[in-house]
This record gives sequence, structure tokens and C-alpha cells, in this order.
Amino acid sequence: MSLVVVGSVAYDGVETPHGKVPRMLGGACTYISLAASFFTKPHIVAVVGDDFAQEDVDLLAGHGIDLEGLERVPGKTFFWAGVYSHDMNERETITTELNVFANFQPKLPERYRSQPYLLLGNIQPELQKQVRDQMGGLRLSGGDTMNYWISDYRDQLLATIADWDFLLINDSEAKMLSGETNLRRAAAKVLDMGPHTLVIKRGEYGAVLFRRDCHFMAPGYLLEEVFDPTGAGDCFAGGFIGYLAGQGINTKGGKIDVAELRRAVIYGSVMGSFCCEKFGVDRFRTLTRAEIDNRYNEFKNCTDF
Amino acid sequence: MSLVVVGSVAYDGVETPHGKVPRMLGGACTYISLAASFFTKPHIVAVVGDDFAQEDVDLLAGHGIDLEGLERVPGKTFFWAGVYSHDMNERETITTELNVFANFQPKLPERYRSQPYLLLGNIQPELQKQVRDQMGGLRLSGGDTMNYWISDYRDQLLATIADWDFLLINDSEAKMLSGETNLRRAAAKVLDMGPHTLVIKRGEYGAVLFRRDCHFMAPGYLLEEVFDPTGAGDCFAGGFIGYLAGQGINTKGGKIDVAELRRAVIYGSVMGSFCCEKFGVDRFRTLTRAEIDNRYNEFKNCTDF
Repeated sequence: MSLVVVGSVAYDGVETPHGKVPRMLGGACTYISLAASFFTKPHIVAVVGDDFAQEDVDLLAGHGIDLEGLERVPGKTFFWAGVYSHDMNERETITTELNVFANFQPKLPERYRSQPYLLLGNIQPELQKQVRDQMGGLRLSGGDTMNYWISDYRDQLLATIADWDFLLINDSEAKMLSGETNLRRAAAKVLDMGPHTLVIKRGEYGAVLFRRDCHFMAPGYLLEEVFDPTGAGDCFAGGFIGYLAGQGINTKGGKIDVAELRRAVIYGSVMGSFCCEKFGVDRFRTLTRAEIDNRYNEFKNCTDF
Repeated sequence: MSLVVVGSVAYDGVETPHGKVPRMLGGACTYISLAASFFTKPHIVAVVGDDFAQEDVDLLAGHGIDLEGLERVPGKTFFWAGVYSHDMNERETITTELNVFANFQPKLPERYRSQPYLLLGNIQPELQKQVRDQMGGLRLSGGDTMNYWISDYRDQLLATIADWDFLLINDSEAKMLSGETNLRRAAAKVLDMGPHTLVIKRGEYGAVLFRRDCHFMAPGYLLEEVFDPTGAGDCFAGGFIGYLAGQGINTKGGKIDVAELRRAVIYGSVMGSFCCEKFGVDRFRTLTRAEIDNRYNEFKNCTDF
């Protein structure tokens, strides 16, 4: 069962207390699809410039990612640079050069349109909607957004997420979207906007899955060393949707196996934790499914009572 | 199996977004012993002034708390007042009047000395040590401390906790005590200071139990309404030690049932969550053991995968 992922493919410059990398592969679509590739076959829709390196194409292709929807246009690839605080809980953006991403119009290859799973990375809500509207026979779709779309494109965003099965956002975004400071009340309001499932990411503190009749709390994995948290939230999303796609989960008729959703949250947390162990996407160069399942079992051991 | 609790009995003035209470029963020893009273019989060691109200004596006695060690001296009871921020994650102290607590010298009634469980609330480390040294036949002892003792009484504190089975502190205190910013490395260093068990409280994000060979993560209960977080950390401590005392747990010979420690962390979280539902100790006036066990089961449902 295959997955379509839409979002940014970029180059990042990152500085953390562990070092500085001036330019490396990044972008939400990159992290999501790499993380998902350990569970299912991702098909990406993104745009890069003519500076996009062959070694980065090879890395993605080497993980079985379908690159037919990776458009290449004249100009430079989206570039972002930032510096993390000492405790890694805050980061300051130094540069955002949208470059070819500024005019990104997602183009879905014909054979992507019948794929059953869709993850819409954080892009303009209207574009997210256009992509979803072109998909036929979706079993499960959802995505991410951010504070900018919540505040300045609220109506478009509400029209977009109304059709989604799930929304994956962080706690401050959930509070902003709902106007509630209490997480549980915020979640109830967001679930009234359309999605039957809401996952609120809380960074190092884990994630909470909300449904109308229950919620599930997953702790954050306690890493001994956080090298670079860039992309961790996107890897969470990739692990979450990747696992569900790999299991062939179906929500048609409004029913869903909540036990599978819970496992998907843990796999999301697992993939987010691995992401932080090295700079950029480096951890995924060597990661194995056996390591992933070992960490999943560690989560079980650390939470069981 | 009975428990001795040492610490402050006080009056608090608290303002939260839900209202303002100028004077109500408070203090670490009060919260710890009330929370523990649902599992075991607490015996308290504390000091109050001649303004301490009979209705507050009655509340404590009504929960089966042994008050023989509650010393009453001329003067006023310890008074603290503070204001919470809108999201309740920060609080500002308005007044701290130590009053009779300034010269607190814990006096252990003779029949307290053979009790098997001891919880030392946050007081001067030297006093904590004096109390513990008077106890014979302890099965399990430990306690709390705070940033002031960690920074200004470090040597005394280290000499004190060296004898403890467990230390219960919050994440910033753990980082300060260890000099490590990473929680897992901080915990490893603290466990080298003596205690075989460390519980790090993370406020709304729950708690982590650390042992040399494993750790256990408990999420924070998601309340729909936090009325007043005052005393929640102390109620966590009361639920934790209270449950273990009630179960008659024994660490002699260095062995301990880790499954029971995990359950104790959940009972601690349960008691901390109830504490926040009303101002001060009000929730404990009506709380029942059945409500406690229901919430324990809610924790199971919200974390199982």
C-alpha cells in the first residue's frame, strides 16, 4: 500500500551545540518520505532547483522513494538556515530563501492519483487542498500546518482540513488553531473542524493522539545526546503515516483500528528520536528496520505498568 | 505499614486565573500526608503557630493522620503567597513569612521512630539527616529538596541524600544537582550520589523514574481544567510513598519490586492531578479511593499500546 507525500525538499544550514553544517539535504517532504520508507513506498511531490545534487537524488532513490513527482526547474533549491539554543528547545532562523519553492505548484503524476495514503506536508493550505482533490480512492489522508497559515490563511486552512482524516500539529499550533490554552479542550475544538484524529506533538515530551472518545499519550524517547532536532517532527509524521500505510489500514465507513493508531504514534516517536541522533538525514543512511523495532520495544518497556 | 512525613504545615495565599484565595491550609507536609492518607497512615512532624485553626487540625485528623508530632508554638504559622501565570506554568512569590517555621527543629515522638517508611519534605538538608538518623528499622526512605539547598548547601545535601533510597525532584533541580542538561545523563549522575531510585517530576508532562538499569516514563494526566497547581508535586510524593507503604514494600538487601515502583509513580501522578482540580487541599475533602483507582485505570487506558 503506497503513500504520496507532498512538501518541501530543501537544503538546510544548521548550527547546534554539537557543530555546524552549512549545507545539507533537508525539507519536510525529505524527512517524511525517508522516515516512511522504512514501512511503505513513498511517492514524493516536490520541487528543486538545478543545484540539487545527484547524491541526494541517489539517497532518496536508494530508500525506494518514487521521484517521478520531484520536479526540477531552473533556479536554486529552497534554502533555510538556523541556530539552536544550548538546550535545543529553541531555534532562531538565520536565513529563509524560498527560491524555486516560492512558485511551487504540486503536479501529481497520473499514477500517484490512485494511491491510498496521502501525507500533506506544511505548505499553503490551498495547494494542500488541490492535491487532495486530485486523489481518487483515498483510504487515509492528513497532514501538517503551521502558525503562519493558522493566523493569516485561517479560512483556507479550515476548508482544507475539513476533509482530512488526521491533523498532525504541535501544541502551540493546536492552541492557536482552537483559541484554547488547555490541551484537552483545544483538541476537542480541533476535532470539531473535521479530522477524526488529531496528533499533537510536544517535542521532547512526546505526543498525544486525540479522538472524540479517547486519547493516547506517548512519552518522548529520552536520548542521551540530541545532535540536531531538525526534521524530528516531520520524521514523526513519516513514521506515523508510513506505519499505517504499511499495515494497509482503512478508514472507509468511518471506522478505524485505534490500536493501530496508537502503534503508529509510537513508530512516529521512534522515527523522530532517530532523526535527532545525527545531523540532518544522516541517521537514515544506516538505520535498519531491526533498530526501529528494538526502539519500539524499548518504548513498551519504558511505559508498561 | 506506617509512614512518617516531615515538612512544612503552612497557610497559603494563592491567585490563579480561576480566582483568589487569600488564606488556606497548605505546606508540603500537609499535601504529602493528605495524599498518602488514602493508602497508609501518615504520622507528621511539623510546627505551627498559635493561629493554626481547629478546622485544619480536624481535616488532618479526619484523614487518619497522626498529629502527635505536630508541634504548636507561640507565634504565627508559616505563610506563603503567590500568583500563577495565565497558563499556570509559572508562578511568582508575593510573600514568604517563615514565622515559627524559621526555627523548626523536627522532634520525633518516640513511637514514630520505629515506623518503616519516611518521606522527608523539602527542608534544610541537615534537619532531614537528623530525622532519618533517629529512625530505626527503615524499609524505605527518601525525600525532596530544592534549588536553594542544591546551590547553597550542596555538601550538606550530598551527605544527606547519600543515605536515601529515593530522591524526588523536578527536572530543573535534577539538572542543577548533576550539572548536566540532558535528563538521562543527569539521572545517571544523581544515582551515583546514593539513591537507588530517582523520580524526576516534569509538571504537566508527567514524571520519569530512573534506576541504574532501566527507566519508566509516566505522562501527566490531561486535566480539562487546572484550578490551582499548588501542592501538586507534594501530592505526587504523597501518592508515591503512600502507595509503597500501603503495599509494605521492602528494600532491605538492596532488592525492590520495580513493578511496584512503576505503579507508585502512576499513583503519584493520580494524586498530583486530583490536587489541581480545586484550590489548595479542597479536592481531598471529598476524594474517595474508588475515584483514585478509576483514574489509575484511566492512566492505563491512555498509555497502553
